[in-house]
Amino acid sequence: MAGALVGVKPTPILEEELDIVIPTIRNLDFLEMWRPFFEPYHLIIVQDGDPSRTIKVPDGFDYELYNRNDINRILGPKASCISFKDSACRCFGYLVSKKKYIFTIDDDCFVAKDPSGKEINALEQHIKNLLNPSTPLFFNTLYDPYREGADFVRGYPFSLREGVPTAVSHGLWLNIPDYDAPTQLAKPLERNTRFVDAVLTIPKGTLFPMCGMNLAFNRELIGPAMYFGLMGDGQPIGRYDDMWAGWCMKVICDHLGYGVKTGLPYIWHSKASNPFVNLKKEYNGIFWQEELIPFFQSAVLTKECTTVQQCYIELSKQVKAKLGKIDPYFLKLADAMVTWVEAWDELNGKVVVDQQ
Amino acid sequence: MAGALVGVKPTPILEEELDIVIPTIRNLDFLEMWRPFFEPYHLIIVQDGDPSRTIKVPDGFDYELYNRNDINRILGPKASCISFKDSACRCFGYLVSKKKYIFTIDDDCFVAKDPSGKEINALEQHIKNLLNPSTPLFFNTLYDPYREGADFVRGYPFSLREGVPTAVSHGLWLNIPDYDAPTQLAKPLERNTRFVDAVLTIPKGTLFPMCGMNLAFNRELIGPAMYFGLMGDGQPIGRYDDMWAGWCMKVICDHLGYGVKTGLPYIWHSKASNPFVNLKKEYNGIFWQEELIPFFQSAVLTKECTTVQQCYIELSKQVKAKLGKIDPYFLKLADAMVTWVEAWDELNGKVVVDQQ
Repeated sequence: MAGALVGVKPTPILEEELDIVIPTIRNLDFLEMWRPFFEPYHLIIVQDGDPSRTIKVPDGFDYELYNRNDINRILGPKASCISFKDSACRCFGYLVSKKKYIFTIDDDCFVAKDPSGKEINALEQHIKNLLNPSTPLFFNTLYDPYREGADFVRGYPFSLREGVPTAVSHGLWLNIPDYDAPTQLAKPLERNTRFVDAVLTIPKGTLFPMCGMNLAFNRELIGPAMYFGLMGDGQPIGRYDDMWAGWCMKVICDHLGYGVKTGLPYIWHSKASNPFVNLKKEYNGIFWQEELIPFFQSAVLTKECTTVQQCYIELSKQVKAKLGKIDPYFLKLADAMVTWVEAWDELNGKVVVDQQ
Repeated sequence: MAGALVGVKPTPILEEELDIVIPTIRNLDFLEMWRPFFEPYHLIIVQDGDPSRTIKVPDGFDYELYNRNDINRILGPKASCISFKDSACRCFGYLVSKKKYIFTIDDDCFVAKDPSGKEINALEQHIKNLLNPSTPLFFNTLYDPYREGADFVRGYPFSLREGVPTAVSHGLWLNIPDYDAPTQLAKPLERNTRFVDAVLTIPKGTLFPMCGMNLAFNRELIGPAMYFGLMGDGQPIGRYDDMWAGWCMKVICDHLGYGVKTGLPYIWHSKASNPFVNLKKEYNGIFWQEELIPFFQSAVLTKECTTVQQCYIELSKQVKAKLGKIDPYFLKLADAMVTWVEAWDELNGKVVVDQQ
């Protein structure tokens, strides 16, 4: 009998296969709290602001740290595609990593506890999510059919039970929810206390708001699509870096037949960012997204696009042609998307990428 | 500020607006267990087998009971569309109800407990699900944004936050999961112990396996699409009644802009049906569904279909044209779909239906 267990693999530790990418660390407690979980792994810290500021990483961690000077040195003129003074710069870490998997987390995200009071090993759950297939072609009402104690329910077509490779694992947040500035302003006291014990595949053709706070992905499968755009210093928009990556990534995963999961693991999001500052950053995005969503919902990639890079370049052309009229920013962003892919290929070598 | 609370309505009891439809009752404990929850409501019991057998309903319940003789008497020649010796006959109850909402439940489903040990009022949760909007056009990572303590997350387009009317609320099952016969045979001891505290909208364009065990719907919005097909006595297939209804219903909801939710509430599914008997019933369905799913995934309804009835008749034509070649059964089923809609209009009056 086929059964879901066919797809379930053990969960190796993957120290040699995964990098943790952190966009700057302003909070020393952060690494101490995660020490038992992160110490076996290599950290890539991408400093988003003033390069003369020093980030002090506690002893015992294996890490490399990049500041703006490093980014400029390594990428040369192509450094223009990496955001400055914004956590969107984290995608530089995806570029320089040589590992198969990436876990990225913000420095205000701490270890959460499950309802029994046990500390949640977020990384372990992300790895489980990434190693097991996804089911984007048909919804399973008992959620992830590959989890222990679950399976495909009656009426789930047998031909779809092998699933597809999982490219992205999107984790959630207890305590401070990831709200936009208007909702933050309207509900300043709202906390997320609901622990939903589920992982599920976001169906093919459905877009979602991907948050970069607690996110893992298979870099070999989807890395070149995980570009966090142009945000922060000198740009008319902020806080849409992860959203942009999520929309591009989802369109490309749907085209190439990869899956995207959301749900577990939770982290504890310790503090809300300032809603007034956020409103200023989001202002344009709130308007623009009303046109971006229909754009991505209707984006079609041609059959000739068989690699992530080809898909991404094709998408950049459509951004230029169809979104350029909203604001010249999108012309610049479309160019930056091309630069990003060029930088990816330069640092990663076409050969490695084509092996996927 | 818009916020999700705009969409949240209080939960009236709706005794005058909801009927509970039960396909036969073989187990007297069933009604006793549900008494505190069901007593205020009207029950419609549809007896699936031998009309001479008597179902003894305990005192205190307000009910009407239909057996095969009643169905034949009320529908005349159109009774051919109602299954015999199969719980698919339950849809006759949807036909004769005059209420806005239907809750249907199997007689082996008991009251479940939440993780705190509290008995779950399944009906109340279904009503909440049906009264609050759905969000099929964009996925919200914190699940139902209209639930207390939740909202739309950053990046969710503001123009989509009003949601769409909810047509169906699909509840889940603790203890015995709703598995097909092959999975039952392979995992006889598997029990569903995972309480997932979530309600979510199944995205537009995504099909799912709708189980009729614990299901509620807005009869005014979607009733004529909730036909449970031809199963049981004299038919080459069983256990696909609710699946068939779910696929037809979902295609029509997507076309008309209605939402379908799944998740809470849980009931306690007490006993697994016999997997050997089930395999015999499912045998054809397991093969056929491999063609049915692509059929429903690609089914397109024309703009001229603006009522559920029109959609359903159009779908019946497509069933005849495209599925008839699989087996003559689908020609008969397509005819029964038309008969069902005719019976619906006859008993419900076109006027009521067109008011929606």
